[in-house]
Amino acid sequence: MQQWKDYQEKNKQRFLDELLELLRIPSISAKPENKNDMVSCAEKVKQRLEEAGAQKVEIFSTKGHPVVFGEIKVDDSKPTVLVYGHYDVQPVEPLELWHSGPFDPVIKDGKIYARGSADDKGQFYMHIKALETMVKTNSVPLNIKFIIEGEEEVGSDNLEPFLEAHKDLLKADVVLISDTSMISLDTPSLDTGVRGLSYIEVEITGPNRDLHSGVYGGAVANPITILAQMIASLHDENNHITIPGFYDDVQVLSEEERTKLNKAPFDESEYKNELGVKELWGEKGYTTLERTGVRPTLELNGIWGGYMGEGSKTVLPANAHAKISCRLVPGQDHHKMTDLLIKHLEKITPNCVRIKAFAHHGGNPYVTPIDSIEYKAAEKAIEATFGKAPIPVRGGGSIPITSLFESILNCKTIFMGFGLDNDNLHSPNEKYNVENYYKGIETIPYFHKFYADLKK
Amino acid sequence: MQQWKDYQEKNKQRFLDELLELLRIPSISAKPENKNDMVSCAEKVKQRLEEAGAQKVEIFSTKGHPVVFGEIKVDDSKPTVLVYGHYDVQPVEPLELWHSGPFDPVIKDGKIYARGSADDKGQFYMHIKALETMVKTNSVPLNIKFIIEGEEEVGSDNLEPFLEAHKDLLKADVVLISDTSMISLDTPSLDTGVRGLSYIEVEITGPNRDLHSGVYGGAVANPITILAQMIASLHDENNHITIPGFYDDVQVLSEEERTKLNKAPFDESEYKNELGVKELWGEKGYTTLERTGVRPTLELNGIWGGYMGEGSKTVLPANAHAKISCRLVPGQDHHKMTDLLIKHLEKITPNCVRIKAFAHHGGNPYVTPIDSIEYKAAEKAIEATFGKAPIPVRGGGSIPITSLFESILNCKTIFMGFGLDNDNLHSPNEKYNVENYYKGIETIPYFHKFYADLKK
Repeated sequence: MQQWKDYQEKNKQRFLDELLELLRIPSISAKPENKNDMVSCAEKVKQRLEEAGAQKVEIFSTKGHPVVFGEIKVDDSKPTVLVYGHYDVQPVEPLELWHSGPFDPVIKDGKIYARGSADDKGQFYMHIKALETMVKTNSVPLNIKFIIEGEEEVGSDNLEPFLEAHKDLLKADVVLISDTSMISLDTPSLDTGVRGLSYIEVEITGPNRDLHSGVYGGAVANPITILAQMIASLHDENNHITIPGFYDDVQVLSEEERTKLNKAPFDESEYKNELGVKELWGEKGYTTLERTGVRPTLELNGIWGGYMGEGSKTVLPANAHAKISCRLVPGQDHHKMTDLLIKHLEKITPNCVRIKAFAHHGGNPYVTPIDSIEYKAAEKAIEATFGKAPIPVRGGGSIPITSLFESILNCKTIFMGFGLDNDNLHSPNEKYNVENYYKGIETIPYFHKFYADLKK
Repeated sequence: MQQWKDYQEKNKQRFLDELLELLRIPSISAKPENKNDMVSCAEKVKQRLEEAGAQKVEIFSTKGHPVVFGEIKVDDSKPTVLVYGHYDVQPVEPLELWHSGPFDPVIKDGKIYARGSADDKGQFYMHIKALETMVKTNSVPLNIKFIIEGEEEVGSDNLEPFLEAHKDLLKADVVLISDTSMISLDTPSLDTGVRGLSYIEVEITGPNRDLHSGVYGGAVANPITILAQMIASLHDENNHITIPGFYDDVQVLSEEERTKLNKAPFDESEYKNELGVKELWGEKGYTTLERTGVRPTLELNGIWGGYMGEGSKTVLPANAHAKISCRLVPGQDHHKMTDLLIKHLEKITPNCVRIKAFAHHGGNPYVTPIDSIEYKAAEKAIEATFGKAPIPVRGGGSIPITSLFESILNCKTIFMGFGLDNDNLHSPNEKYNVENYYKGIETIPYFHKFYADLKK
């Protein structure tokens, strides 16, 4: 499709400039102080969808942040692809580790540094530019709908009621999401599944006020010490998770599946070098690809308590806090696992302190069948623009809403991500390679074309 | 001494107002932004010493915060008491837990609420008002020197060179400090010792940047998890400290000493109620009075790492931090113990992370002999104003500079504290009872009188 390539080549700089403009909006969904930025961001997405040729573009308000919808309808007899993305981004702390402002995008060595560059503004925006490419060259091969939401980073709490309320509007044959990564531009890959998530927060309270650690130390339980002991007890010496029942529902992979999974290219020493660690860590008996792809995990996402300032303060604090999340794999239900996690922590809390544990958000794991027409269309699209077929891999992250698309809209999801694992998602200096951005815009129209062809 | 009482009664309100004025100065020694407040506070102390009748009042600058000196010399043949206090205060965080501003003193139910009210402005200021009482009634019984320093809460790093440089100026027979507490006004007590302190900070670093906990979780060591495991390993199931050699130098108390120590009034259920805990905690085989008085401890004073904001962030953080301090008892040397603690933590650090551990400050434990003239003078002074002899107890806190007074000035220290254990030292809502303040001002002149008499 030379006309796509020509159009994209001609509009290259504008495609990039528009993304940078979007990246300048600090759309942090977790922070109440960014509420207005969320609205501005939704409005910008609406404007860009309209300019790209989408119809019926509308901002739907929810109990939380708004959802942007748009569509292009070419022919009722053609299949419909529902593109999903999110315009909200993660918080930016610790700010001091950023080399440039998180909302002041900078291009350096071919990489766009900004919060949201890869997750997910840079990736969903490829779909808007792909739409523009097809519209302006009069070559839209099927019907396309868009929902770009604003709460992915805080658990998409209001997406389920939105999907329920707009089943007809959102009716589609497949959901297409670019919010994952590939191995590299040389070794393209497609995620065939994402892990689920259970995210909780714990507060351990000891005395009713901060105490002097000299006057009371040694006689009153220190909530930090107790919390540390509780956390330590959650993994055994083989880094298996010790919570009774934790692995009960995990679908065990066959030896054949494990062998296949471990065929994906992986260079341990390069991986370690890139992360700056001397040794890897993980559940005994599993490879790194298995640990990040098909095994459930329990991670500490945050901990705090007592004096955290400069110098020293001899305090025995009243409480200590932790944020803990589990990645879940097929077979595990996030409601059940969150409940199991909270109940276990409550059970192991000693009487000298009190616990308050509550759920933040969660989502179920999801697997895409690789023998489906949808997967084949994605495979062919990658092959068309990369010159080689993608390797199917299991992604370690979570996109909890995929199971909602299945249950409410009865749609399978295709993960066609163009990020890289080292894009620093959720971290300081998040980046997205300019080349990957353009490659995505180039590849997406082929997906629509091949999917329309295969569905004939 | 009716004239003392009359003078104090007449000036009661002014004594209190002057203290409140001093409490309004945010003299937080740990915070660089309060450097000017430290200077203002030292100047106010100088002014008040001069007004009270002290001579040669001078502010000595140090590499850190200044020291205020003053003296009154009545007769070279009389003994000299060196009064020590500190005008610096602890940081005030967490600010949201204060019922009124930490530097906006409020009197409620007979208690002065303000940072530094008990530790130590309210207590060293009693000595200035006691001096004024004796000077204005022409009844100073001996020579008195004052050093009021500004770095007690950050380890008194510059006091040792100051003492070394001014040995002659500071020459005295005994050091008198009001920076501890008594059981209650009904059950007066005198601290016969304080614990030593080793205070360190630890940083555990895993990957070279914050990672996405989905993409990398399960395959890369999480510094929070590792730090928690290390902390958990520092106590065994009996709450004994597990660091090899930790108890080696502890002077074991005789059964007789233990029996005596445990005779101090202690109501466990009242203690638990007052702290709001269901169960106490501590080293197996020891009572609460022993755990806080004569046993060494290891406390977590602070911990932080990863995402600590509202909501959730799925991060596997690059590092995690903790502030850890040990209270030391007679026999233990703080340099040796700090070294032992750091080396042990380095030793138990697994290869999947790196550790950086460093010392904040420390001090040796100290015990006052209760058969000395100095202790007897304090005992008689308490008896004169409280109507009953004080109970000798071991204090759990640390005043590291006492061992310096012994080694450099060759002086024993008397702890004549008028605070209460529930004064919320180092915590939000620090308070000092107005009655204790006045009782201290009343009692101090008697110490000087009895000490002069006993030394004749």
